[in-house]
Amino acid sequence: MSNELKEMDSLFDRLFPIMRSITGEGVRETIRILQEYIPINMEGVATGTEVFDWEIPKEWVIREAWIKDEYGHEIINISDLNLHVVNYSEPVDLWLSLDELKQHIHTIPRKPEAVPYVISYYKERWGFCMSQNHLDSLPEGNYHVYIDSEKIDGELNYAHVVLPGKSKKEVLISTYICHPSMANNELSGPIVAAFLYNRLKNWTNRELTYRFVFVPETIGSITYLYKYGKHLKEHLYSGAVLTCLGGKEHQLSYKMSRNENSPLNQLIQFLNQREDYNMPVRPFTPLYGSDERQYCSPGFNLPVGQFSKMVYGKYAGYHNSLDTKEVMSIEALLDSVNEIERLLKLQELNGFYINLKPFGEPKLGKYDLYPDINAPAERGRSTNNKLDNRQQLNQILTLLNYSDGKHNLTDLSKTLNYKIEDYEVSIEALKEHQLLDGPFYEERELLK
Amino acid sequence: MSNELKEMDSLFDRLFPIMRSITGEGVRETIRILQEYIPINMEGVATGTEVFDWEIPKEWVIREAWIKDEYGHEIINISDLNLHVVNYSEPVDLWLSLDELKQHIHTIPRKPEAVPYVISYYKERWGFCMSQNHLDSLPEGNYHVYIDSEKIDGELNYAHVVLPGKSKKEVLISTYICHPSMANNELSGPIVAAFLYNRLKNWTNRELTYRFVFVPETIGSITYLYKYGKHLKEHLYSGAVLTCLGGKEHQLSYKMSRNENSPLNQLIQFLNQREDYNMPVRPFTPLYGSDERQYCSPGFNLPVGQFSKMVYGKYAGYHNSLDTKEVMSIEALLDSVNEIERLLKLQELNGFYINLKPFGEPKLGKYDLYPDINAPAERGRSTNNKLDNRQQLNQILTLLNYSDGKHNLTDLSKTLNYKIEDYEVSIEALKEHQLLDGPFYEERELLK
Amino acid sequence: MSNELKEMDSLFDRLFPIMRSITGEGVRETIRILQEYIPINMEGVATGTEVFDWEIPKEWVIREAWIKDEYGHEIINISDLNLHVVNYSEPVDLWLSLDELKQHIHTIPRKPEAVPYVISYYKERWGFCMSQNHLDSLPEGNYHVYIDSEKIDGELNYAHVVLPGKSKKEVLISTYICHPSMANNELSGPIVAAFLYNRLKNWTNRELTYRFVFVPETIGSITYLYKYGKHLKEHLYSGAVLTCLGGKEHQLSYKMSRNENSPLNQLIQFLNQREDYNMPVRPFTPLYGSDERQYCSPGFNLPVGQFSKMVYGKYAGYHNSLDTKEVMSIEALLDSVNEIERLLKLQELNGFYINLKPFGEPKLGKYDLYPDINAPAERGRSTNNKLDNRQQLNQILTLLNYSDGKHNLTDLSKTLNYKIEDYEVSIEALKEHQLLDGPFYEERELLK
Repeated sequence: MSNELKEMDSLFDRLFPIMRSITGEGVRETIRILQEYIPINMEGVATGTEVFDWEIPKEWVIREAWIKDEYGHEIINISDLNLHVVNYSEPVDLWLSLDELKQHIHTIPRKPEAVPYVISYYKERWGFCMSQNHLDSLPEGNYHVYIDSEKIDGELNYAHVVLPGKSKKEVLISTYICHPSMANNELSGPIVAAFLYNRLKNWTNRELTYRFVFVPETIGSITYLYKYGKHLKEHLYSGAVLTCLGGKEHQLSYKMSRNENSPLNQLIQFLNQREDYNMPVRPFTPLYGSDERQYCSPGFNLPVGQFSKMVYGKYAGYHNSLDTKEVMSIEALLDSVNEIERLLKLQELNGFYINLKPFGEPKLGKYDLYPDINAPAERGRSTNNKLDNRQQLNQILTLLNYSDGKHNLTDLSKTLNYKIEDYEVSIEALKEHQLLDGPFYEERELLK
Repeated sequence: MSNELKEMDSLFDRLFPIMRSITGEGVRETIRILQEYIPINMEGVATGTEVFDWEIPKEWVIREAWIKDEYGHEIINISDLNLHVVNYSEPVDLWLSLDELKQHIHTIPRKPEAVPYVISYYKERWGFCMSQNHLDSLPEGNYHVYIDSEKIDGELNYAHVVLPGKSKKEVLISTYICHPSMANNELSGPIVAAFLYNRLKNWTNRELTYRFVFVPETIGSITYLYKYGKHLKEHLYSGAVLTCLGGKEHQLSYKMSRNENSPLNQLIQFLNQREDYNMPVRPFTPLYGSDERQYCSPGFNLPVGQFSKMVYGKYAGYHNSLDTKEVMSIEALLDSVNEIERLLKLQELNGFYINLKPFGEPKLGKYDLYPDINAPAERGRSTNNKLDNRQQLNQILTLLNYSDGKHNLTDLSKTLNYKIEDYEVSIEALKEHQLLDGPFYEERELLK
Repeated sequence: MSNELKEMDSLFDRLFPIMRSITGEGVRETIRILQEYIPINMEGVATGTEVFDWEIPKEWVIREAWIKDEYGHEIINISDLNLHVVNYSEPVDLWLSLDELKQHIHTIPRKPEAVPYVISYYKERWGFCMSQNHLDSLPEGNYHVYIDSEKIDGELNYAHVVLPGKSKKEVLISTYICHPSMANNELSGPIVAAFLYNRLKNWTNRELTYRFVFVPETIGSITYLYKYGKHLKEHLYSGAVLTCLGGKEHQLSYKMSRNENSPLNQLIQFLNQREDYNMPVRPFTPLYGSDERQYCSPGFNLPVGQFSKMVYGKYAGYHNSLDTKEVMSIEALLDSVNEIERLLKLQELNGFYINLKPFGEPKLGKYDLYPDINAPAERGRSTNNKLDNRQQLNQILTLLNYSDGKHNLTDLSKTLNYKIEDYEVSIEALKEHQLLDGPFYEERELLK
């Protein structure tokens, strides 16, 4: 097991048991643990604040929740599994018959061994969750239900950090921290985000600026947009929400952003079409998904897609107690880090370039980038003493001809069929001789 | 027989016998009868007026026209069939041999029982029309030809009416009133237009403004453009010429306007591609057709297509005496009214909408448009007490996400495959809560 | 043999023996001979002048070059074949062993009978070229190598002429004059250019202006761009480089310009798609080719493609002594002149036109362009006394409808399937009656 894998595993174990909700101590504790790994700043917005069409709710404080039978035997207790109480339940202390109790119990009849995850943030009610098997086993009799919870004025918390690059254009990586004990559907995102941050931090030459954001889902991203939406509208180049990134057998897939000009949309489609990359691509939809639905709301329409491996709603453990570390697998998270890092690297390379000597071909021989004799023996070589073959000269001529600030590397790869990353050496050679400038992340005009 | 059908039938019988031409009493009488059904205003432009490259001709007055044999027996008389005289014939009163007579007789040799419809508006000549069979039966001898006609200073008449809607953008419905006794090729258009007007008049919520125009073909529409072209250029949203709308066995078809951005072009193509509508679509051509050729001339390029059922030139009765009520069928006219009304209704619905809370998703729960609990039993439902299923929530989320003033319902239907009319209920629900505004008939910006 | 063919043949024989290089007396002598055929002006740029990233080199003066064996017998001598010396060789006068000599001999081992053409413009070296067979036959012994050459301050020469047309928009025809004795790869271009000039000079109605340019390849076109690039950027409508236009069995082919809006690109693609023209089209590439690579460099991006028949690099004689008049064939050059002239003629016809009476259809009857009666017998005719059939009326109606300054003839041919040249008669008829204006070579607005 690599060090990275060990650290991911240990982070998982620390975060899993925490009773998280969209507000409260669980979110703050999660952020504090993450701060040991990456330098995120926590911020908060007070209960009652209006954020667009929403209002920050009270914090939910949950101290105790259990059901006991008439003999005082514990049936369920959130100290065993924090899914057992309906998230945001009101306090209760009552004796009920089995029939009355059942009115407040949630199960998944078609998955009788699973305890569902149930929330009721905005409507006052109380309830418990257990497996159907467990419920079926309960005998007639009286039951004591007890929830010691409270809703108090507090705040909604989120955390973020900006990793600066040469360009002020930003790439958003956003994930959520609001579900209690779930592996794939909760912890895969923050763990991948944290370790991805540490990879990008070590890049020697970071062209773009990266913004990592950890928010409670939906109301958290809406609140983040309320605070930073204007800045994002101005600076965002591309981005992705990270969710459900586990699943050893599953391929990483990409949900496109609503904004079709998103560089990540275009890059991934290019890789699929030209480089046999075969990443499953899902169309944008506002119907299902995660916070990309908020980032892509029409008032913002940010170029934010979504990465997912074991996609929400498509596996047995979705929103229930079967969503465990074993099902998810830490190795799968590492795979996700690797693949997303590679795509972000390609995205940086895939900018617009400017030929600094655009009038006719530059005299490449001066820079030792062209053969100094045209004879049959040398034909097909790039230079007669430095570069190894005609391939690089082809790349150089293609780069010079199309580096007019209007073609990025994917455009260029349509005329000369190399992979994007194959151009890196030739780009460096041209930049070394002040023949090329870039990458840039918007179209440019050539110098006059 | 429905009341509407009876009224159409009776209107037909009143209009059929009238001796119409591009000018004169026939046009005015036709308009006066139509005025009993719809509130059109008649206007006139005086003989000699220059309208673009044309000049308003003199009115043709025709009082009598017949051929008799040397025994005084009548061979033909326009009192029997007003096609018997060449339209716009000069007066004549002559005795001719059969051979001389034949120089002035028009027939259709390959349809020996039909009397052709012949016109010579702009060149002075006289002539008669009869069936080939009839002509072949005439014995040698002398014949008396008599036409009592006159060309006098007068005017060219047309009529129109505007049915206002919430938007000042207009839909043009144009048809012609200049042929003598023909059913499909003359009366189908005005009758459908008149009854369509009465349908639209009764719409409770008319979004667009409708302009109904009755003109003599070609020179009439050119004259109308001369008077109202500037207004149309400014206000016209879409439109269609109505012609040849009879034919029980024939499908209604649409000839596209030259202007490819015409909303009707796009709507009908969309319905064909997405909703299996299967309306035959004919490309625009300036070579054949009716007044859409004038509305689509390059100086105007108005978004005006053409509806037709039994298309001109494609049936035995085209421009001859076989074009009768029986061949056309009044029921077919009613079908045309129904189908065109439906398309106009869909066109109104298919506007651009504006999400009035575009920053993040609105908190739909506040409006009772979202389930107030997220639990397995409720998944797949829109709300837990009002709307019946997830389908409407899907429509609502799609409407909100794409209602940015740049996507109309056909665009939106490309992402969520409902029929245009299926969105009507969800649109109403969102408008009721001030979450949506529209339809609008040009692209809009979101509110800031 | 036609006169034209005889003249081409004689021009070839005069130009072939000249020792050309990128500078010097050979280029000037070539230009002086061409001046007897066409009125080109010679210009020069002095040695040492910086042109963009390049510098004008010294002139290479070559007086004598040979190898003799130790008995004084001549092995090779440039007086027999001017390819025998490496172009731009330094002077030398040495006795060498066979092994030492071989270090300076270039051959083509896989074509043992061919003498290669070798250049070393920018690196000081000396060398000889001979066939592999010849080299293999040399016995051991000492050899006397002698090159009497010099590099002197002088100039780089080129020549050009402008043939004015009604429009100031220009078509560039560019070819090169810098290779010594090669037929297809050197002389085919200048000979075709010269005779094409004389064809265009005789056109009675020249719409566009034509610029014929004769330059040394690469550095010559870069120098020309240095002097005239700004003018070309402003005035150039389209153009082509002429190279390798011989080869009886080969089809003329077209290499597209980088600039996709080039009228020649669009015309040739249209002809291929619509008129079964079947001209092979090669995509633009900066990797191989001739001076179009310079004209299409991103700082200029001129709409300049390239015509070629027996394409460079694709035949046995490429850059060696097998490139002879017999292989090339003078008849093939005449074919190239014919085909390029036809394309240039079509390019002129294929402009934008303006309907001068765009509001409704003009009253074509006034101009005798429409039948003056609408009767069964006349249907399908254009007019009843002048034009021969409905075909011309169709063309006229199509021209009038689409001549809005936004559709050229290729656009129009998409709606009515005639060949571009078939419209010529109808265009003339409409222009005669002041109904049409054009062709124009950029989009226009209709008159108001």
